[in-house]
Amino acid sequence: MNKLLIVGTVAFDAIETPFGKTDKILGGAATYIGLSASHFNLESAIVSVVGDDFPQEYLDLLTDRNIDISGLEVVKGGKTFFWSGLYHNDLNSRDTLATELNVLADFQPKVPQNFKTADVVMLGNLHPLVQSSVLDQMDVKPKLVVLDTMNFWMDCALPELLEVIKRIDVITINDEEARQLSGEYSLVKAAAKIHAMGPEFVVIKKGEHGALLFHNHQIFFAPALPLEEVFDPTGAGDTFAGGFAGYITQSENISFENMKNAIIYGSNLASFCVERFGTERMVHLDKDEVIARLQQFKSLTQFDIEI
Amino acid sequence: MNKLLIVGTVAFDAIETPFGKTDKILGGAATYIGLSASHFNLESAIVSVVGDDFPQEYLDLLTDRNIDISGLEVVKGGKTFFWSGLYHNDLNSRDTLATELNVLADFQPKVPQNFKTADVVMLGNLHPLVQSSVLDQMDVKPKLVVLDTMNFWMDCALPELLEVIKRIDVITINDEEARQLSGEYSLVKAAAKIHAMGPEFVVIKKGEHGALLFHNHQIFFAPALPLEEVFDPTGAGDTFAGGFAGYITQSENISFENMKNAIIYGSNLASFCVERFGTERMVHLDKDEVIARLQQFKSLTQFDIEI
Repeated sequence: MNKLLIVGTVAFDAIETPFGKTDKILGGAATYIGLSASHFNLESAIVSVVGDDFPQEYLDLLTDRNIDISGLEVVKGGKTFFWSGLYHNDLNSRDTLATELNVLADFQPKVPQNFKTADVVMLGNLHPLVQSSVLDQMDVKPKLVVLDTMNFWMDCALPELLEVIKRIDVITINDEEARQLSGEYSLVKAAAKIHAMGPEFVVIKKGEHGALLFHNHQIFFAPALPLEEVFDPTGAGDTFAGGFAGYITQSENISFENMKNAIIYGSNLASFCVERFGTERMVHLDKDEVIARLQQFKSLTQFDIEI
Repeated sequence: MNKLLIVGTVAFDAIETPFGKTDKILGGAATYIGLSASHFNLESAIVSVVGDDFPQEYLDLLTDRNIDISGLEVVKGGKTFFWSGLYHNDLNSRDTLATELNVLADFQPKVPQNFKTADVVMLGNLHPLVQSSVLDQMDVKPKLVVLDTMNFWMDCALPELLEVIKRIDVITINDEEARQLSGEYSLVKAAAKIHAMGPEFVVIKKGEHGALLFHNHQIFFAPALPLEEVFDPTGAGDTFAGGFAGYITQSENISFENMKNAIIYGSNLASFCVERFGTERMVHLDKDEVIARLQQFKSLTQFDIEI
């Protein structure tokens, strides 16, 4: 089986949406990426850090999905990264109520030996120096490196972010962040500028408005599935990235045509993520549901005009 | 050839966008619908009203596109409807600077005799009583009636609007208007409520984020074409509706499957409209350009996952 190496936060989240609120629940970019990628035929490992307040039950949940957690450091006496957010009525905007870095503050990632030859590396949202350090530890150049990041790093670590962006193949980023990074309002122009910073492929995530894949002058668009109710958008972008990276890892094909499928799979998995709080829906998602919804994506987008 | 009857405003517009501003130029819902529908193999007529300040050159522009203007009343001594708007930097929001109804205030539509048997009726944005009056004048029930409307009529003529909505087959409406009309935030729920008001088909226009077609439990989505620059969004929604109605008129097929194609054609034509001020791009658009861009829509959305 092909190998996918995942880097990112493993966290406690406390979430409030118009539909309710949670206590501290399982969260973090690497968690969502890992759960999403576990729907593909691959071996995956998470490189991250938690404190010893992190419950065994959550670790078991990851290993139950065949995710290798030998690179998930548990710091004795340390506290796990904590994020708390409040979503507004439209669910498109949110306020961050708390960010406690805790054990993340001094995190030095250690890639497990048997994942230093991973086929695909998914650099989830974390300090760009951590993302770079993971690439430095690889024994073999991966077939594909995908990076996700946030406006936070553009504000406080832009030079380091630009350095790691030079080294990757695919960037996934949301629309506002693409505008901030490029200084361009038009997403077509923004993608061109970001492409010039390094990555061959630029994926711009627009939340409920879908996602765009840019490669040279080619563009592909995947809609978000229209849902009766979006319950909690937390983790949707990471779930999307995990589906994308997972599909590419399984299929061993990094062509633009195959990336279209990867984008659809990412959108598909993200459409489940938002149906419940946190990781709740992803943990109980089975293969038949994913396949059935792929059919919905086909009906939603495929047409047959004779030209 | 099949016949398409178009009702809506014919107007002077004065537009300001971040890219520049215009004096009074040709505008109006029926104008954009007519120009867009003229790309199909059909006979069309516009029912509307202007003052005698409306230049012959604009009338010629319509008849040059084979649009019958015998139902376009010219009021002696009257002034043509005038609208002026200022778009904000994101081009997604605008302020209306002036609305002078002029000859529209007392408009009594008169459907030309040879269009009282039209196959398709496109009721563009106007007072719902004018839209109803046009339906009353038909000798034969049209194969399809499409209605476009605006929040303005929801605010000031809701009972009349709900009456005409009962009599139509397809409504095209933008996302905020769908939310206002239905009282539902989720567009899936909004479409279901609007469906229950009468129309079998509900089209929700999301501007740069594309358009959704709802029919019972089926959904189709057409993206807007990602453009380097959107110059002026004025008329894009009407151009979309005109492309939709024009394609249906030409193809004589009102199935959900064929409406998917009509939505794509509408999006295709609208993508040209926004490239220049007002009707400028539509007037000089030729068939080869439209066909070439259809190919772009295919590349943008079509994928091939084996399920």
